[in-house]
Amino acid sequence: MEPSEDELIEAIRRVLSGPGPEVIVGPGDDAAVLDAPSGQLVLTADALIEGVHFDLGFTSARDLGYKAVVVNVSDIAAMGASPRAAVVTLALSPQLEAAWVMELYGGMREAADEYALWIVGGDLTRGDLVALSVTVAGDVSPGRAVTRSGARPGDLVAVTGTLGASAGGLRVAAGGRVRTETDRALLRAHLRPAARVGEGAVLARHGATSMMDVSDGLAKDLVRLAAASGVRARLRIADVPVADGATEAEALGGGEDYELLVTLPGLPTLEAAVAELRDAYGVGLTRIGDVEAGDGVVALGDDGVERALDPTGWDHFRS
Amino acid sequence: MEPSEDELIEAIRRVLSGPGPEVIVGPGDDAAVLDAPSGQLVLTADALIEGVHFDLGFTSARDLGYKAVVVNVSDIAAMGASPRAAVVTLALSPQLEAAWVMELYGGMREAADEYALWIVGGDLTRGDLVALSVTVAGDVSPGRAVTRSGARPGDLVAVTGTLGASAGGLRVAAGGRVRTETDRALLRAHLRPAARVGEGAVLARHGATSMMDVSDGLAKDLVRLAAASGVRARLRIADVPVADGATEAEALGGGEDYELLVTLPGLPTLEAAVAELRDAYGVGLTRIGDVEAGDGVVALGDDGVERALDPTGWDHFRS
Repeated sequence: MEPSEDELIEAIRRVLSGPGPEVIVGPGDDAAVLDAPSGQLVLTADALIEGVHFDLGFTSARDLGYKAVVVNVSDIAAMGASPRAAVVTLALSPQLEAAWVMELYGGMREAADEYALWIVGGDLTRGDLVALSVTVAGDVSPGRAVTRSGARPGDLVAVTGTLGASAGGLRVAAGGRVRTETDRALLRAHLRPAARVGEGAVLARHGATSMMDVSDGLAKDLVRLAAASGVRARLRIADVPVADGATEAEALGGGEDYELLVTLPGLPTLEAAVAELRDAYGVGLTRIGDVEAGDGVVALGDDGVERALDPTGWDHFRS
Repeated sequence: MEPSEDELIEAIRRVLSGPGPEVIVGPGDDAAVLDAPSGQLVLTADALIEGVHFDLGFTSARDLGYKAVVVNVSDIAAMGASPRAAVVTLALSPQLEAAWVMELYGGMREAADEYALWIVGGDLTRGDLVALSVTVAGDVSPGRAVTRSGARPGDLVAVTGTLGASAGGLRVAAGGRVRTETDRALLRAHLRPAARVGEGAVLARHGATSMMDVSDGLAKDLVRLAAASGVRARLRIADVPVADGATEAEALGGGEDYELLVTLPGLPTLEAAVAELRDAYGVGLTRIGDVEAGDGVVALGDDGVERALDPTGWDHFRS
């Protein structure tokens, strides 16, 4: 027998965070109440829609829940901030079973535990398809948030980790052939991306002038960062760190890698950040270009020719 | 020509709150940054799904946007808290025009201005139907949030305003006959409900032991409040304030009235709250029952007979 709505909500409540040291009122009331954040309040929200962001036949409920939290944590990380709490709204199509819903919240809880935040409430409703919306609240020391708009001529452009693994994982899954260790790593990068929270804080501390996470692909996101900052970015394509098993096109246009794209004011800063990220997190930080006066993004190709980067050229990698 | 996604986002950004005194980073970055709340942080979220909560043929984009914000503000009010900021995720079906989207955000902005909060960010995505999710963050003095679970035997049960207008408005609209001033008032109550923010703060200050907003109908919500508090509520049906033009059944089971259901510790407290709500807001506060030891809700009918209240009895008023 399927549980009633109130029974399902009660079951979800048990999967989510109960009252904890920071949670004064948890799930189940009109609103959640938390200890005041220690600095400024940071808020972000993302929706994942069935048929657009995921396919129920391909994505497990647990992976979907996990990723829904991580993509928001990544946005918090990209401000140099720390996640504290999440609220979730979920529209459920009638054919989904209670077990699926519990797995979904289980995946969210897994990510919440990993990134040390509390899932404190939200809303469950009917729908003709699954629509999941997650809001994460975080905090940052006053005045220390790193926006997209602070890049200045003379800054260096760098990116954490490697790019293209998520798009590669999508390709591997679409081809139905997960045979090698590399295939498995690509698929995992797509299904279980990591948010760079500690890394974002390190980069902020080292004086990052602008930062964002690479969610729509390096090409598109670098164009956005340059536009927000009112500068031109010069990108050396040969320097873009490509994930094992991924292609250069996937690294430039694939999206959903959730690495941090950052500008830093000069080489000594970059080198200090590289050393700390390597020692503390085992994560690379690669210089991929420079900031200059002007607008747009100029890409220096492997053939030595410079071209204006047209981000829509990689749009076919997006679903 | 339809605008691109980035152009649409830029247009939305202009409708929403720019940086203001409390908003350090507004819409357009990975996350928004706000001044720290003055007390504890309060979070709530609600989703409105096409075909479940609204019908595009009946609800205007502006009313939908307005209501989506108000229902969340109401949840903040029900904690005795004040709204500060909202983030919004929106999935849009392809046939909707940019003008519709701008009207939707215009309605949200209208509500945000009315309740003095900032819409600071969110996410816009494609979908096969419209799914709107709004999160509101607010604040409350430390330790002062009023939950659903604090009602104690001896408390009085009261409700603000009148009930049933929203369900009556739905009936009027479904019948297609909006002829009288009363019809118009009912319809307006359904399309443009009010959140009781100031009233919630007054009730909290007068020592409310529990509080929630009446979103799913008095019958269902009073059962929930009694269960959360571990008490029995005794409801006198003849005392329930019914909105002009609404029926008693609509008042008990209709939902979406967003009045505050509250328990107060004794008559002097109730009378003081009644006087302040009348003088400050012109809003009524009506005693409708009492709290005693036990569980469930016992309703004293107009016929003088007591019955256990079965909230599902009014479920047919829900869509």
